Amino acid sequence: MFSVTVRDHMLIAHSLRGEVFGPAQRLHGATYVVDATFRRATLDADGIVVDIGRAAEALHAVVGELGYRNLDDEADLAGVNTTTEALARVVADRLADRVRDGALGDGLDGLVVTLHESHIAWASYERPL
Amino acid sequence: MFSVTVRDHMLIAHSLRGEVFGPAQRLHGATYVVDATFRRATLDADGIVVDIGRAAEALHAVVGELGYRNLDDEADLAGVNTTTEALARVVADRLADRVRDGALGDGLDGLVVTLHESHIAWASYERPL
Amino acid sequence: MFSVTVRDHMLIAHSLRGEVFGPAQRLHGATYVVDATFRRATLDADGIVVDIGRAAEALHAVVGELGYRNLDDEADLAGVNTTTEALARVVADRLADRVRDGALGDGLDGLVVTLHESHIAWASYERPL
Amino acid sequence: MFSVTVRDHMLIAHSLRGEVFGPAQRLHGATYVVDATFRRATLDADGIVVDIGRAAEALHAVVGELGYRNLDDEADLAGVNTTTEALARVVADRLADRVRDGALGDGLDGLVVTLHESHIAWASYERPL
Amino acid sequence: MFSVTVRDHMLIAHSLRGEVFGPAQRLHGATYVVDATFRRATLDADGIVVDIGRAAEALHAVVGELGYRNLDDEADLAGVNTTTEALARVVADRLADRVRDGALGDGLDGLVVTLHESHIAWASYERPL
Amino acid sequence: MFSVTVRDHMLIAHSLRGEVFGPAQRLHGATYVVDATFRRATLDADGIVVDIGRAAEALHAVVGELGYRNLDDEADLAGVNTTTEALARVVADRLADRVRDGALGDGLDGLVVTLHESHIAWASYERPL
Repeated sequence: MFSVTVRDHMLIAHSLRGEVFGPAQRLHGATYVVDATFRRATLDADGIVVDIGRAAEALHAVVGELGYRNLDDEADLAGVNTTTEALARVVADRLADRVRDGALGDGLDGLVVTLHESHIAWASYERPL
Repeated sequence: MFSVTVRDHMLIAHSLRGEVFGPAQRLHGATYVVDATFRRATLDADGIVVDIGRAAEALHAVVGELGYRNLDDEADLAGVNTTTEALARVVADRLADRVRDGALGDGLDGLVVTLHESHIAWASYERPL
Repeated sequence: MFSVTVRDHMLIAHSLRGEVFGPAQRLHGATYVVDATFRRATLDADGIVVDIGRAAEALHAVVGELGYRNLDDEADLAGVNTTTEALARVVADRLADRVRDGALGDGLDGLVVTLHESHIAWASYERPL
Repeated sequence: MFSVTVRDHMLIAHSLRGEVFGPAQRLHGATYVVDATFRRATLDADGIVVDIGRAAEALHAVVGELGYRNLDDEADLAGVNTTTEALARVVADRLADRVRDGALGDGLDGLVVTLHESHIAWASYERPL
Repeated sequence: MFSVTVRDHMLIAHSLRGEVFGPAQRLHGATYVVDATFRRATLDADGIVVDIGRAAEALHAVVGELGYRNLDDEADLAGVNTTTEALARVVADRLADRVRDGALGDGLDGLVVTLHESHIAWASYERPL
Repeated sequence: MFSVTVRDHMLIAHSLRGEVFGPAQRLHGATYVVDATFRRATLDADGIVVDIGRAAEALHAVVGELGYRNLDDEADLAGVNTTTEALARVVADRLADRVRDGALGDGLDGLVVTLHESHIAWASYERPL
């Protein structure tokens, strides 16, 4: 199994709902350094999993929809508690939409998205394609 | 599949038994930067895999039992050759005990512990929960 | 010249005032990974620049005053455009206050605070003590 | 499941064939920071997956066959489009040969090789042993 | 003193002239992860050293002039032994030209450029502005 | 001003003397990831500050004298409280001896040694040559 990963980031504000979150129930924010890993059982005719340039563009577009925003006000995220792990799924599902639309070639088997919220904590979501 | 990872560290002394270890048979030590990854197939009602604060506390407690010690003298580790990979298991099993005791919520599926012994070497142990 | 550095972090929301900031004029947020470097020309009687434990506590207290907050609402920061470089100075000056109050021993010559806002951008402020 | 990872690097020149590669069709080069992960279901009698010293030597030998070279001129790579993912397989297969020849002990179950081409892109190849 | 740093990278091929370079006399290549640090004694009216967006664009333009090329064939570098430290100066001097042309605001006092050639070696060049 | 940095590491055991050190008064250990930075005002005839290969060898030799040892038992360190900052000086002074002996070329102006004891703490010592 092969994989290719590209990294980007986004700067967002949000608050979390639930007593478990303590002070993170207040409006605050985060830099998420975002890694998107694309998996493919075999390489394509060019010898790649996915074109790194197109993968980076797709990821940049997805984080661009979320970055420099207060996620509490985003209609698309209504009802989502925007924890790091939940946002990892949002990014992964949006990338999967782009894969399904053909923006990233074909033959991809799976996708992992990791959001680093600090140097000591990160979360991932893994899904098939 | 979702995961959440928290990072901590411990400073220990030890020696290793076996000719394969060469100079590491002498008493020396290491900083282990320790990553604990918790896995859960779905998010809980709060939208999380595990509370990052509680996960960090659990990991801090476990590395606190080992840190600032000469592991050669620890009764709990008698008979264990405290290689990086063996210590990864010790940390993972102790975290699993805390999960079983309910300190980290329920529904967790698995655990991976990685110990970085330097910028060029690390070891992991992965187990179900 | 000797130095000791400790690292912590804070999660904040804020917005920036000025056309130069483009989309960062909107309410968003950041994780700042914060490095505080203490300088001393010679080591003290214990052979240290500063006790790492006390330095870490002081930094944790300072970032704790800012973290999990919307900096746009903080009275202490009224009139401050909370850019990364301006916040580096806020953190440094608050650490300098603690040094002056004796919380970190004596003999320190200077201080550098670096705030990493992402994997590709950071800012520093350096001052004497 | 246990694993041990060692890191090394190589500096190579190459060009890529195919319009998808854009400017990377020109002769250029890369530093690949190379991580080799060895997996074993259980630890051996010494309490290890593989001797870190021998693993590091094996990886150093493999990257030494590729480094400080123009890969476009290497007979062994004729017909290979030396993308990061393809090179990850080359390194992994050459390490697997060394495992099969007994240079790294026995009982190993699998191998993952990751080549980091920059701070924002990397690729992996995973195979059984 | 304040500073702001932005990071980018470039992929180049080259060879080095001189027996001291051993195998690096052969045509090979490198990824240089490039950090450009801008210094200013005080913040400007917007509370910044330099606009991070414009600094990132300037650095991207400079590394874009060098990347995906064989530096041995670049007319602009004729007679330059393109060691990591010499390239750090090339990048710094080209950024200084852009500062002088007004692309990065005014009031900047100095510039440091660091090129990371691997996880275990890097070089810097520092100059006034 | 130019500089070149090389990175290596050492694994040591030690204990620290003084109440300020709390649990670190017990025998424990550390991995020190060691960065040695060499400074030179101008490049030499080969276009370098120092040969990276020779710098790496010198650093490897110096950390080899300390690594895989209990520093409490080292005659050369008798009377030294082997804090991170004190060890940074030991490494720097030993490198300076090698520079003075001609092992690293001439014309070097200064040296900085940084010892990283974990992902959240490090110390440096800077000296002229």
